[in-house]
Amino acid sequence: MFKIFSLKGGISNVEGFYCDGVNAGLRPDPKQGDLAFIRSETLCRVCALYTENRFKAAPIRHAMRYGELFESDFLLVNAKNANAMTGEKGIEDIERILSMLPSDLEVHNPLMSSTGVIGYRLPVQKIVSAFDSFDWNAKNSDAAARAIMTTDSFKKELCFEVETESGESFRIAAIAKGAGMINPAMATMLCFICTDADIPADEMRGALERAVKGSFNRISVDGDMSTNDTVLLMANGRSGAYDRAAFSFALEKICFELAMMILEDGEGSSKVVAFEVNGAANDEEAARAAVNLSNSLLVKTALFGEDPNWGRIASTIGASGIECDEERLAIYYDDLLVYDSEHRELDSRREEAAYSIMKKKSFKIRCELGIGEGSYTAYGCDLSYDYVRINAEYRT
Amino acid sequence: MFKIFSLKGGISNVEGFYCDGVNAGLRPDPKQGDLAFIRSETLCRVCALYTENRFKAAPIRHAMRYGELFESDFLLVNAKNANAMTGEKGIEDIERILSMLPSDLEVHNPLMSSTGVIGYRLPVQKIVSAFDSFDWNAKNSDAAARAIMTTDSFKKELCFEVETESGESFRIAAIAKGAGMINPAMATMLCFICTDADIPADEMRGALERAVKGSFNRISVDGDMSTNDTVLLMANGRSGAYDRAAFSFALEKICFELAMMILEDGEGSSKVVAFEVNGAANDEEAARAAVNLSNSLLVKTALFGEDPNWGRIASTIGASGIECDEERLAIYYDDLLVYDSEHRELDSRREEAAYSIMKKKSFKIRCELGIGEGSYTAYGCDLSYDYVRINAEYRT
Repeated sequence: MFKIFSLKGGISNVEGFYCDGVNAGLRPDPKQGDLAFIRSETLCRVCALYTENRFKAAPIRHAMRYGELFESDFLLVNAKNANAMTGEKGIEDIERILSMLPSDLEVHNPLMSSTGVIGYRLPVQKIVSAFDSFDWNAKNSDAAARAIMTTDSFKKELCFEVETESGESFRIAAIAKGAGMINPAMATMLCFICTDADIPADEMRGALERAVKGSFNRISVDGDMSTNDTVLLMANGRSGAYDRAAFSFALEKICFELAMMILEDGEGSSKVVAFEVNGAANDEEAARAAVNLSNSLLVKTALFGEDPNWGRIASTIGASGIECDEERLAIYYDDLLVYDSEHRELDSRREEAAYSIMKKKSFKIRCELGIGEGSYTAYGCDLSYDYVRINAEYRT
Repeated sequence: MFKIFSLKGGISNVEGFYCDGVNAGLRPDPKQGDLAFIRSETLCRVCALYTENRFKAAPIRHAMRYGELFESDFLLVNAKNANAMTGEKGIEDIERILSMLPSDLEVHNPLMSSTGVIGYRLPVQKIVSAFDSFDWNAKNSDAAARAIMTTDSFKKELCFEVETESGESFRIAAIAKGAGMINPAMATMLCFICTDADIPADEMRGALERAVKGSFNRISVDGDMSTNDTVLLMANGRSGAYDRAAFSFALEKICFELAMMILEDGEGSSKVVAFEVNGAANDEEAARAAVNLSNSLLVKTALFGEDPNWGRIASTIGASGIECDEERLAIYYDDLLVYDSEHRELDSRREEAAYSIMKKKSFKIRCELGIGEGSYTAYGCDLSYDYVRINAEYRT
């Protein structure tokens, strides 16, 4: 059996990877980073998953030119400007920026990733001028993780070391940003995963898709999907070690934990709720109900109000168009039954218990449909005054 | 050509209809109505459209037993309790209540309609006791319209008189309630339309479906769909007059104007916005984009913040999965161009103009996709702190 350990820090722990973050003047406060790089001293196998938004931002259209699976050793990331809806000019800007990287870095297939406001050209000169501030041999994951934040209130980085059954070991680390526009299909989130595992190129996509399906694709802050979402896996193979099961486990774990951090840090979010739907006609119907629950404004405001109003849960399931029957439905908050056909009105004891559960920072709402074997869990958060404030004021 | 006039008041203006509203103790304030009736002294042809929610409330399941098209002369409506998720008992409660109506009313196929909190049995005794407070021969549309309000901040009633080309005339009037959970597919809204037009039974459903499709199905407050939505058309034929085109026009007009009143009164809404999408591959794709725009939290909060952030409009269109191309897209606020491929960044003059438009109580966001001939207009409102407050506190 393999073993997995958490290490303090992020990408810096992974052999052969270097990273740093600086202020390039995109944020007004010079102490706040807004530009980061991640590079590997040897070439990486790279696999990327992108937003399904039809208006893909320029950095995604630029990266897609390398194909589905390719080799690269360099990634530049900026905050505050999404370089989206900028047309062919947006791609030209990326090419100009990347062509100005120091020649002694000898970058191969360099990538760029961006997050921020849509519709403005990148400040090419500012970005290029900031290259001098980078320490290209830094292992400063903290600075990189901070520089990619937008409305995030805390940085998101994780690192695991995996010891395989045969005694070999490799590391996997990632930094991510999220906060708003988080929705199934990875909305406005960036996640860069670096590993020294010697994963074969042809196993990368399957592993990454499974990990994203179980993590970033299950979380919703507000049901919106951005133009820039990217999950990137860079593997430089430097450890010489690999074990398929152990690597998949570690990749799924790092994605899931980062997804929960993103949700916990959802704009104006004060609690994280798992919506588990069981007993649906099939997994697709379970997923539809669970995702609708995580996106419903009436459910999200009831969570914020800490009101055990299970009627909104039931109504949202019924509105999702799946097969369901009020005589067979049961709804639980954690393990507390709040509705079934024998217990339709909350008595005061159960109502008190439900209030206590809803006050927690994290709990589960479980819906048993009693129809078939379909199951799915989606993760969401509440909708608070702060969400409205942040998003009413965001651009200014 | 026919003529159409607005009359002051509502249902009371229509020959043969009586209505009233009283307090039955469902609301704590005895001055606020919570129970209304509408009756016709002669039998009406009735056509109803109901919520698509799979958990249909008891009053809907009760009414559906009469079939798609039936005759009735009596409707009872209560607020504060939805009689939803109450099982077979919920229907039995309705039957008990309606069986206690004064026998001299000689009601035929009486109906009930409810709105309010889900999951509680109707207070049968309170409702039946309030029958004594009704004036069964009242023509008090104002009291009826007020008694069906929930979080509505103003009553919704309209009446038109229609003069046909041949000089005959008939009237059509309606009361409605809305406010929250308003979504395409008529979420938590009730609308009761009474006419003395002599419309043939077999023309009612088509006319009502068209009118609802162009009105209540195009508006969204929060994307949620309730268990109780109902649009009911009662025609007693007392005028002896009918003209298909004139009647359809009047029915569509009354539904559209009530829909706009509901949106204007959306929970916490401070402005009404039309989302017009033209040039889509087909009408279905136009509708998907327009409806997504009206439901997007990021769009709704930008409206509240009065921020001309067209990037959120573009991103939402791209996320709706329809055919689109950023080189062919153009976005207008009223007649002001805010984006096309030649004008990607707002200059200060256009930004100022956009700010002025966004300050209006009502304006249009028009998206020209430049792909095909598909068009659709959806109507939405902004999302404010008040929406969160109202819905976090609603049940208590």
